[in-house]
Amino acid sequence: MSDHAGRITRARKAMTDAGVDFLLLSVGTDLPYLTGYEAMPSERLTMAIIPLEGTASLVVPELEAPRVEVDPEVCSVLAWGEHERPVDLVGAMVAGASRVAIGDHTWSRFLLALQQRVSEIRFVPASTITAPLRLVKDDTEIALLSAAGAAADRVAARLADQRFSGRTERNLARFIADALVEEGHDTAAFTIVASGPNGASPHHEPTDRVIETGDTVVLDFGGRIGGYCSDTTRTFSVGESPTEVAATYAVLRMAQQAGFEAVRPGVAAESIDAATRRVLDDAGYGRHFIHRTGHGIGLEVHEDPYLIAGNRRPLERGMAFSVEPGVYVPGRFGMRIEDIVVVTTDGGRRLNESSRELVAVG
Amino acid sequence: MSDHAGRITRARKAMTDAGVDFLLLSVGTDLPYLTGYEAMPSERLTMAIIPLEGTASLVVPELEAPRVEVDPEVCSVLAWGEHERPVDLVGAMVAGASRVAIGDHTWSRFLLALQQRVSEIRFVPASTITAPLRLVKDDTEIALLSAAGAAADRVAARLADQRFSGRTERNLARFIADALVEEGHDTAAFTIVASGPNGASPHHEPTDRVIETGDTVVLDFGGRIGGYCSDTTRTFSVGESPTEVAATYAVLRMAQQAGFEAVRPGVAAESIDAATRRVLDDAGYGRHFIHRTGHGIGLEVHEDPYLIAGNRRPLERGMAFSVEPGVYVPGRFGMRIEDIVVVTTDGGRRLNESSRELVAVG
Repeated sequence: MSDHAGRITRARKAMTDAGVDFLLLSVGTDLPYLTGYEAMPSERLTMAIIPLEGTASLVVPELEAPRVEVDPEVCSVLAWGEHERPVDLVGAMVAGASRVAIGDHTWSRFLLALQQRVSEIRFVPASTITAPLRLVKDDTEIALLSAAGAAADRVAARLADQRFSGRTERNLARFIADALVEEGHDTAAFTIVASGPNGASPHHEPTDRVIETGDTVVLDFGGRIGGYCSDTTRTFSVGESPTEVAATYAVLRMAQQAGFEAVRPGVAAESIDAATRRVLDDAGYGRHFIHRTGHGIGLEVHEDPYLIAGNRRPLERGMAFSVEPGVYVPGRFGMRIEDIVVVTTDGGRRLNESSRELVAVG
Repeated sequence: MSDHAGRITRARKAMTDAGVDFLLLSVGTDLPYLTGYEAMPSERLTMAIIPLEGTASLVVPELEAPRVEVDPEVCSVLAWGEHERPVDLVGAMVAGASRVAIGDHTWSRFLLALQQRVSEIRFVPASTITAPLRLVKDDTEIALLSAAGAAADRVAARLADQRFSGRTERNLARFIADALVEEGHDTAAFTIVASGPNGASPHHEPTDRVIETGDTVVLDFGGRIGGYCSDTTRTFSVGESPTEVAATYAVLRMAQQAGFEAVRPGVAAESIDAATRRVLDDAGYGRHFIHRTGHGIGLEVHEDPYLIAGNRRPLERGMAFSVEPGVYVPGRFGMRIEDIVVVTTDGGRRLNESSRELVAVG
């Protein structure tokens, strides 16, 4: 079981240090992290009001109250009827505060309404309080990330047995989404299938392009188990890979390995980025590596710590992030290798262990 | 084809009337409504900057630039690199403005960063500009809503042939999600399966509860075609329905019919709510009808106009909304009937025509 009361205690310590009187959480993952409840994205406001002391309150639409399950010692539920104005309820609860932290993903319309209602309050992003808490994963969280990683690996293994040529990207994406659930995810979250020249678009969305022999295909996919995310990328070659692709891939694989081997407690997050980039730069591919090396992962697919030049934060045991260098040649092909890595006492541990070869498929 | 340039022209007229200098759009559906491009929800900011005159700009992360397809006459693309600060780019473009409208669903973290960057600007929700434009659907939009409604109806018809007893809510929800896509939706959006006592929770999420003979089961589902949503609810009886359930259902059906028949141009949105509520009140079920009668639908599942007491907005030809009264008896059962209705010149036209009987299933 997650220790919601303990997490709220740690959040309050951070609030005190930052001079924050209330933490207001709506849609997004800070709310489930601290209370176990996830708000539905809706024009009907759901918002937790966490004061420095005393019981937290969860303001929810009356028609959603029956689905709320929160520990009453952590949070009391305040249901509002269809004719009430929930922003007024929240505003009345925080009136008189000087600084309030609001969930990063909270819809702007609610923040604007609150700012109008309590104009004397200074609002700051909740991540200033919650991100440092969430950076280091506890054993339960690492177990869920591991389970999600293993399930994603089983999908990767099944993909190596699939025929690619003649199928559309969209068809293969559908196969991946189904396989993510069949292999144990609660839900599929994303399925990038980028074939041939589409591979040069890192966040390509699957199209009706028919995959053909000679294509290099980037597959980047993940889902959630118990709220925690998987995220892995493997690159496949339909038929034998062209010499240039194979040579480029060999360098990419060295770059990803270099990034993995650079992981250990105490080194700066940016040093992992430097490690992958150095290999690609030295081989002349630097200009084709157009994104950071990785992102933290947990309840969000992307969260702190980001592996990017300028992020001097030292890695700590229990941090989890992707290591995912890529090479993107516009109009021609792309490739990426991505594993989730957890920082251990003496290095890193990969949560993805499916083949990192350029797998040939039919 | 959607008329993006025409929509932007109409938005600018509304901006002028409201004294708004810029419209800033990120995640959500205002951006695709006006430009055809949908922002990925991400810590990497995507934002359109639409000034009162001249070309609009779309600020996107460099690695997503390859996937952007917008009419260059409508919008120029400004890609930012991994080491740039996109909020600074946007801030510089709107500096000197006095009033700026920002997308309702924009993440608060970006609004807070912008407010800090350009503290002299007053921000207002973009819906004050866009919602009135989006209220009345054009022929293309109604065609997509109709196609989505028909696809959802085919799912409802298939459900009537399914065995319910012995299956979990989750299993049935999976069937519905697959069927939504098989019947023509691009994606499934939501699948409420609320059986037995769970039916009393209007927004129940599917659980591992096994459906059994004697249950009343509320199924509320929808997906998207070309961005436009379906949303229909039907109630099923597993085996013969108990007399009380059948009697309650007969009243609910009259209430839903009364709501539908009240639809015509010129009447207030609240009058549809009054029409359904009167039937349920008169039969003594008023306290079990705990939500408004309906919501507008289009690119969002829920948008203006809302059918709720207090909304005096007159209905106009081309508005589309749900008519969905329900009865919820805590701890026992629930039921709801929902159709999407489009306002025509002389009344309403239902976009859902699957059986509104209390369908008996095995």
